[in-house]
Amino acid sequence: MKIDLNCDLGESFGTYTIGQDEEMMKYVSSVNVACGFHAGDPLVMKQTVTNALSHNLKIGAHPGLPDLQGFGRRMIQVTPEEAYALVQYQIGALLAFIEAQGGKLSHVKPHGALYNMAAKDSELAVSIAKAVFDLDPGLTLFGLSQSELTKAGAEIGLHVAHEVFADRTYQSDGSLTPRSLPNAVLHDENQVEKQVLRMVEKQEVVSTDGEVLSIKADTICLHGDNMAALNLAKRLFEKLS
Amino acid sequence: MKIDLNCDLGESFGTYTIGQDEEMMKYVSSVNVACGFHAGDPLVMKQTVTNALSHNLKIGAHPGLPDLQGFGRRMIQVTPEEAYALVQYQIGALLAFIEAQGGKLSHVKPHGALYNMAAKDSELAVSIAKAVFDLDPGLTLFGLSQSELTKAGAEIGLHVAHEVFADRTYQSDGSLTPRSLPNAVLHDENQVEKQVLRMVEKQEVVSTDGEVLSIKADTICLHGDNMAALNLAKRLFEKLS
Amino acid sequence: MKIDLNCDLGESFGTYTIGQDEEMMKYVSSVNVACGFHAGDPLVMKQTVTNALSHNLKIGAHPGLPDLQGFGRRMIQVTPEEAYALVQYQIGALLAFIEAQGGKLSHVKPHGALYNMAAKDSELAVSIAKAVFDLDPGLTLFGLSQSELTKAGAEIGLHVAHEVFADRTYQSDGSLTPRSLPNAVLHDENQVEKQVLRMVEKQEVVSTDGEVLSIKADTICLHGDNMAALNLAKRLFEKLS
Amino acid sequence: MKIDLNCDLGESFGTYTIGQDEEMMKYVSSVNVACGFHAGDPLVMKQTVTNALSHNLKIGAHPGLPDLQGFGRRMIQVTPEEAYALVQYQIGALLAFIEAQGGKLSHVKPHGALYNMAAKDSELAVSIAKAVFDLDPGLTLFGLSQSELTKAGAEIGLHVAHEVFADRTYQSDGSLTPRSLPNAVLHDENQVEKQVLRMVEKQEVVSTDGEVLSIKADTICLHGDNMAALNLAKRLFEKLS
Repeated sequence: MKIDLNCDLGESFGTYTIGQDEEMMKYVSSVNVACGFHAGDPLVMKQTVTNALSHNLKIGAHPGLPDLQGFGRRMIQVTPEEAYALVQYQIGALLAFIEAQGGKLSHVKPHGALYNMAAKDSELAVSIAKAVFDLDPGLTLFGLSQSELTKAGAEIGLHVAHEVFADRTYQSDGSLTPRSLPNAVLHDENQVEKQVLRMVEKQEVVSTDGEVLSIKADTICLHGDNMAALNLAKRLFEKLS
Repeated sequence: MKIDLNCDLGESFGTYTIGQDEEMMKYVSSVNVACGFHAGDPLVMKQTVTNALSHNLKIGAHPGLPDLQGFGRRMIQVTPEEAYALVQYQIGALLAFIEAQGGKLSHVKPHGALYNMAAKDSELAVSIAKAVFDLDPGLTLFGLSQSELTKAGAEIGLHVAHEVFADRTYQSDGSLTPRSLPNAVLHDENQVEKQVLRMVEKQEVVSTDGEVLSIKADTICLHGDNMAALNLAKRLFEKLS
Repeated sequence: MKIDLNCDLGESFGTYTIGQDEEMMKYVSSVNVACGFHAGDPLVMKQTVTNALSHNLKIGAHPGLPDLQGFGRRMIQVTPEEAYALVQYQIGALLAFIEAQGGKLSHVKPHGALYNMAAKDSELAVSIAKAVFDLDPGLTLFGLSQSELTKAGAEIGLHVAHEVFADRTYQSDGSLTPRSLPNAVLHDENQVEKQVLRMVEKQEVVSTDGEVLSIKADTICLHGDNMAALNLAKRLFEKLS
Repeated sequence: MKIDLNCDLGESFGTYTIGQDEEMMKYVSSVNVACGFHAGDPLVMKQTVTNALSHNLKIGAHPGLPDLQGFGRRMIQVTPEEAYALVQYQIGALLAFIEAQGGKLSHVKPHGALYNMAAKDSELAVSIAKAVFDLDPGLTLFGLSQSELTKAGAEIGLHVAHEVFADRTYQSDGSLTPRSLPNAVLHDENQVEKQVLRMVEKQEVVSTDGEVLSIKADTICLHGDNMAALNLAKRLFEKLS
């Protein structure tokens, strides 16, 4: 692969199923597994680890805020101490399933609101980076490209992966266009492919204002929620492998 | 110490506090830390591990059923597969806090209804023993003395610790008198001390029917819920150390 | 309608969706709305009530055990006092949405494990019936046909509805064949229709042993989980209306 | 009583107990009962209602954010629609226990972070006021004195009660001094009594900057967390009754 492709999965819960995990595992190199706070449950986590190992994928923990109802997407005002503890708890929980099955944890990527908060709040970012580092300094920390989180990870001595999004648009300051705005998501597959190739080959992206921004792209986040997303994942996988 | 003394703690949750953990840590050699399903939360777990390490105590995971409201004491009909996964999840979560602080996990003791169910249900017992063994065959499994759980642990190759209770009475078949019966708990400190010494020194206990039962006693469970329990713990600690 | 047709719905939760509620509402006369303990959340409940009112359906509360992960299907050993309180809590929660929208609560049907436990455990059944009666003696209590629950409801003075299942087989003692057995569910639509018509027209059902059992059938439970179930619902609706 | 004295209670959960509810009930005229999202559980709610009725107190619902671990004190970014639904759900749940015991719901007071958010966010305030009004326009809405919540309540047609705090200091803009600042809470009982009497008799309070502010004081919030709080409650009760 020319670049790491990652996908969030293991997000089913009890009787509730979400995502097409088995299918997506064919088209990515890394998976981020929900750890039971915003999605996932012990049985789902165990099975997801089994599947990921059988596909020889890099497995990451995907810790989120304790909010199953909001799928971890609602901002909760946690303190840096709470964030440290809830991240370490969730990584450990996933780690148990990985180690019991003879695998190895590769990385950690905070989920949803925690990811977005840590991209901007340096104190929170430092706390999360420390939770990861204290547990295992050999882990890679995934964060929004050039954010407070990747900065905190690098400063504490973690390997970090700057993450970009295949189908999201960027604003002139390098941040993602908020989902509340109409042009937040690219729906045209050709446009997505073009953006991704430019990110990978030139480390740059064109903002919604037409500016060419220099970016860091170590890993690309794909989604697998529906058939269209799955087709896109397949197409990008074929272009980039 | 002539015998291991253990105590369940780390059972506070958010604003809710229970137990006199710091005080109890002076009188025991092993602690069983709640892992967030029936009691405890990430912050409480982290702090409890810090305290236990500073007291040089053996630290165990104390996984329970997912029932905070019932404090893990209500039987929930989980399948062996569910039990495997929820035990492994909780051990891993605690392990993260221990490893991040440079400590070592010593043992696992299921909590409450899960403990009681695993004492009698061999399929459940085997599943729990396997969850522990698959994660780390060097861990010790605590179970009710001479129960299905200690049997399953020994058969899979774990070191097991047969647990007896200082202040509970025993029936002629070796089981604990259920808490629903009036004579389930010994309230007289002298009687408790006499029972404990006999357990430790002669590996026997007198049942409620007056029979002398041969038992295995590797570890004694103490409680620290109130001042009387705390005094008793102190007294037994002094007798046995 | 020749007989009441009911369906459990409002079982989505946050991002997780289950069931084809809008479609099923066309083919039933009563709906049982999940109340947030085993499924459903406040937003889902509010919307489900809105939809049910627009279809002029009889709305019932469908309280379950506090077990989202197990979808309320795992037996939890609750006391009669706990059952009373958790049933009354959930009915009240649903009632708020109904009254705020100008509707009227028609009935209560316990869900899953609570339904099955209350069918056999008379103490639990009495406690649930009392929780309903104390809140509003005008409510109808749905229970398994000729069970402890319908008995307790009738004795306390509630109107009760004996419930039968369109696609489940019956044993000679009148109980449902447990789902763990291979012949628990009828898959042949013609067979289902035949069973339902016999239940409605003759108040009898043929057991798996070939015995003709006399039953009470006030309401028939349909499912809407998949396309086959939906087609069956439509077919029965057309036969019976 | 010269003025309504209110207290938040019913905040125990399962095995976890908080507050001295029975004692506090002697010194207040209104109680705000936790509804299970941030504190309280069905059994605790039922018992709290029983106790409040036996003391002839006005009973209010005290709905909070779904965050038991944070005791409803952590801000969660809920939408106005989510706030509407979670408030109506919780009021309904409490209402069931009140009506089943022959009582009457008097008022609604949002808890913790929801209370503070609704004091400043007019859209959220309107949504909460509407949830209360749609359920029962005869209910009184408690809110921070002269806040967005009391404004929204009055505008929709609810009776509102402007709430002041006995032991909190006020800033020149009329807002409470945040708890993060050292002078947020008055610890001197004489000072508290003086502030309360001035609030009640002159409808004014002296800010931390020494300014005399005109306020509205319909109800005073007391706490019952510890012995000091309890003594203060008793003293104010005696002064004001």
